[in-house]
Amino acid sequence: MAKTDLAFLSISELARLFRSRKLSPVELTKHFLGRIERLNPELNAYLTFTSELALDQARKAEGELCSPRGKKARRDRGPLHGIPISLKDNIHTAGIRTTAGAKFLKDFIPEKDAQIVAKLKETGAVFLGKTNLHEFAYGVTTNNPHYGPTRNPWDTSRIPGGSSGGAAAAVAAGLCVAVVGTDTGGSIRIPASLCGIVGLKPSLHHVSVDGIIPLSPTLDCVGPLARSVEDAAILLDSISERRKGESSRTKKKFILGVPKEFFFDVLSSEVQASFESALKALRKRGFAFKEISIPLLNDTESAGNNIAWAEATHYHQKMGWFPKNSADYGEDVRARLEIGARIAATTYLEALDIREKFVRQFHQSISEAAVDALVVPTTPIPAPLIGEESTTINGKDHATRALLLRLNRPANLAGLPAITLPCGLNQDGLPIGIQFIGAISNEASLISIGQAIESSLSPIGRPADA
Amino acid sequence: MAKTDLAFLSISELARLFRSRKLSPVELTKHFLGRIERLNPELNAYLTFTSELALDQARKAEGELCSPRGKKARRDRGPLHGIPISLKDNIHTAGIRTTAGAKFLKDFIPEKDAQIVAKLKETGAVFLGKTNLHEFAYGVTTNNPHYGPTRNPWDTSRIPGGSSGGAAAAVAAGLCVAVVGTDTGGSIRIPASLCGIVGLKPSLHHVSVDGIIPLSPTLDCVGPLARSVEDAAILLDSISERRKGESSRTKKKFILGVPKEFFFDVLSSEVQASFESALKALRKRGFAFKEISIPLLNDTESAGNNIAWAEATHYHQKMGWFPKNSADYGEDVRARLEIGARIAATTYLEALDIREKFVRQFHQSISEAAVDALVVPTTPIPAPLIGEESTTINGKDHATRALLLRLNRPANLAGLPAITLPCGLNQDGLPIGIQFIGAISNEASLISIGQAIESSLSPIGRPADA
Repeated sequence: MAKTDLAFLSISELARLFRSRKLSPVELTKHFLGRIERLNPELNAYLTFTSELALDQARKAEGELCSPRGKKARRDRGPLHGIPISLKDNIHTAGIRTTAGAKFLKDFIPEKDAQIVAKLKETGAVFLGKTNLHEFAYGVTTNNPHYGPTRNPWDTSRIPGGSSGGAAAAVAAGLCVAVVGTDTGGSIRIPASLCGIVGLKPSLHHVSVDGIIPLSPTLDCVGPLARSVEDAAILLDSISERRKGESSRTKKKFILGVPKEFFFDVLSSEVQASFESALKALRKRGFAFKEISIPLLNDTESAGNNIAWAEATHYHQKMGWFPKNSADYGEDVRARLEIGARIAATTYLEALDIREKFVRQFHQSISEAAVDALVVPTTPIPAPLIGEESTTINGKDHATRALLLRLNRPANLAGLPAITLPCGLNQDGLPIGIQFIGAISNEASLISIGQAIESSLSPIGRPADA
Repeated sequence: MAKTDLAFLSISELARLFRSRKLSPVELTKHFLGRIERLNPELNAYLTFTSELALDQARKAEGELCSPRGKKARRDRGPLHGIPISLKDNIHTAGIRTTAGAKFLKDFIPEKDAQIVAKLKETGAVFLGKTNLHEFAYGVTTNNPHYGPTRNPWDTSRIPGGSSGGAAAAVAAGLCVAVVGTDTGGSIRIPASLCGIVGLKPSLHHVSVDGIIPLSPTLDCVGPLARSVEDAAILLDSISERRKGESSRTKKKFILGVPKEFFFDVLSSEVQASFESALKALRKRGFAFKEISIPLLNDTESAGNNIAWAEATHYHQKMGWFPKNSADYGEDVRARLEIGARIAATTYLEALDIREKFVRQFHQSISEAAVDALVVPTTPIPAPLIGEESTTINGKDHATRALLLRLNRPANLAGLPAITLPCGLNQDGLPIGIQFIGAISNEASLISIGQAIESSLSPIGRPADA
């Protein structure tokens, strides 16, 4: 087996190789560490390497998994046992620095693991390191002013998206099998889409945020970035609070809702074309489509902003960081923290009211139309250039940040699970994503849909240099 | 039986008289209507009389309760059947105007009953009318600028307290058996204390607020004002969402916690003396006392204010009332709504954090000390004169409003049940209250304590003219 291929195998393929002793967790870990050493200097996907820990964990996994049958040491911890993964650097890791991409946390070493890290340690997974992110997860470019930009493996002059940009770049470039990231307004799905991988944002509260540096508790979600829906599902299952839901895996024909409002109003022609051809392919495979209406989609953008802005500033004030460390924030994050300080309590409460109405309308529309999920694009544009602040669509300039957030925010505001998958490449070879938004707490059915889609759309391959 | 006595009988005494046919619900209702006609012009306890409805309900109760045994019409709906009660006028009553004490709602007639009104109708209770209140329940004097002040039956130059001032005056003067009121910062307990009756604020969410005009949803509670703990318990039971908790009625000796902080810092000498002599009497009856410490009590006053101010203004904005109707609010309510509009979202979120810490500390202190409840005064002063804006205690001037709220707010912020009982009269013959704050959802035990206290302290009698 070619070394390059090893880094792109699925979790279940790796698990099989481990158990048939054709591959050892230590060998695999060393292979990833070598790739990281070779490729990370350009990509800057990692902020911290935990090579020693990874090798210790791999050796332990090897002892447990590969010792001869009947030996006392033998213990199979399940699908993630011995699998090299990484963590976004806003997730507390005991004894390992957790910067959140912030200058003034560059030497912060948590005493305790986040709850999901403790869970992951039980699975026997191997931790390769902590991935780069937009400062405090508060932005969508991962153009980090303190630790340098992460670069998109498909074109290193471009952003990977954010805030989990390092995570998406690492997964896309084969610098780990999968990563746990966070998503407050699209921070898992945006970079997954721009880097041509799978990103799954579960329902609000589906995964514990305990020990994860918050952005906006009303919107924050934790979930996997991976190269396949199956890998994402395995990782999600290992960190979830709730029992796995009823899966509809046996179901072959799904009905997908296409929202009448909002999602198709601002879209580049290449994303539009890619989305339409994906729907065509899905129709051929027996998927049915239904137009559905959620009028409040047009009126919730500022509610989402007001909630996120106020809650973010509140947290930074509470920690004594803002305004004290004002000069140490990146310009964009500082500006947003300042906006948050100016929001009135009554505006915030109004935003919560709008959110409540929106949640009700969204749920009602999905259930009345009896669709399995909504299908929409993930981002209106493929990966912009690093530093590209605005993008023209149909002759009109749009702020890049707002464009990338636009189609992702609704699932956060509604607390609904959403998954993005690659659905093609544009003429410059940049990935384009397609997004499915499910019913509340129905991650299992969203995963079934994702798997059906994945096998219906042509794979996009991998970045040239990876 | 003297007519005057009839109006002051307990629910269980009345129920017994109904069932032994010594008294009929119609006779009792007419008696109350007569008293209202005679005494309300001076007291101004009622804003709306529902005499026709009351007589209809009384006739129906009479038919059900008093028809001969074995007859089809006979039906016993339980302790409140045929009992004349009233409702604070911020509680929606279908087809009956509900002013909330506001000028611009003087002709507002709800289409639907509040949930508790529907529940009460099932009990067969008789509704005498809607009682006066501080405008929008947003104040503690019931010196209503649009409908006139309610006067304290013990001294009509004095306020009854508020915001459920009409309710307390009506109960104290024998213008009904009991009233359902609301309490956001003391609005049941303050007037109950100043009018020498029992007021019970249950735990947050113990009674549904559906169909009640909100002041601050994080703090709003609904509960009874009555002349005895037993009457209050019967009324509470009929409107509660939850099943009746385990009662400790068999318990005779209670351990009461006396907080070290806050509650005794600003107290008039007459309330101090009355409180100490009550404790002395209770000690003789076998009650034990324990000093307990809740340090956050000293730092929560502004958190409570910020939550109430922001939430109140938000609701009035949402209803389109504020600032549109600014000129139609009383000066004090308008000023508070203006303050609420200026609170920052981050300040509001900080207040919620403080509340959360306070709730934890409060609960922990009660449970670690293993006390049955806390005992504290209800108000630092007896009823002030109408229009008296400030009161001097130990040579220092205090705003009357802040004084009256002071000892009541903590139970609202902590979401805990609290009950006030009369514990004596000052030298001018004005009632003084004693307050017990229980553990969360432990209304049953608070009621047992209240009954034990009631039988241990000397009754204060009733106002001279009643």
